[in-house]
Amino acid sequence: MYSEKVMDHFNNPRNVGEIEDASGVGTVGNAKCGDIMRIYLDIDENEIIRDVKFKTFGCGAAVATSSMATELVKGKNIKEALQVTNKAVMEALDGLPPVKVHCSLLAEEAIHAALWDYAEKK
Amino acid sequence: MYSEKVMDHFNNPRNVGEIEDASGVGTVGNAKCGDIMRIYLDIDENEIIRDVKFKTFGCGAAVATSSMATELVKGKNIKEALQVTNKAVMEALDGLPPVKVHCSLLAEEAIHAALWDYAEKK
Ligand code: FES
Repeated sequence: MYSEKVMDHFNNPRNVGEIEDASGVGTVGNAKCGDIMRIYLDIDENEIIRDVKFKTFGCGAAVATSSMATELVKGKNIKEALQVTNKAVMEALDGLPPVKVHCSLLAEEAIHAALWDYAEKK
Repeated sequence: MYSEKVMDHFNNPRNVGEIEDASGVGTVGNAKCGDIMRIYLDIDENEIIRDVKFKTFGCGAAVATSSMATELVKGKNIKEALQVTNKAVMEALDGLPPVKVHCSLLAEEAIHAALWDYAEKK
């Protein structure tokens, strides 16, 4: 049912945690299942994402997509990070079952919310 | 949104893992969200549940209810274990939001499936 990459990022998620005094924090909820996701960004003076962490109460698919999404935005500038869509994340994971696609939206939305929070703070 | 007990069992789940040569194994899926759960039982000659482990791809609520459910059935005999309902598990966790009640069913169903597997093997 799940690809090897999904199981790898689920069993061994990258970038789980929090960032104190983060440049931007985004929290989003999933109306379909009631799960929540929070992303923390550390952005340097050149607008490069130096570090990123996430926490979620979501399912394995939410964990795997967040793990992959944080890997994909790390080291990128803001404009590039905005181009990391949930479609790109799912492709990097070799796909997700249709019933789980809504879970993958959490990561994209939380990253956008965190970038928005950063923009507002500046 | 979530009780302290739910967050405790989510952040620090009890009895996660597998049992080799288990007396009974139960795997169930959640039609509502597509998540899966597997329970392993080690049952002794007096029909006491000596050990129990679980693995799930489900959300935080599924993790917390499975953690609590496995704690509740450990050391019990089969008849007592069958009386551990998802209602009892949710009460032991000080409740769950309504949108998450379907997640709590996974543990009860997987325990029943594992007991059924044990009965069939005998
Ligand atoms: S949303 Fe699938 S088990 Fe909770």
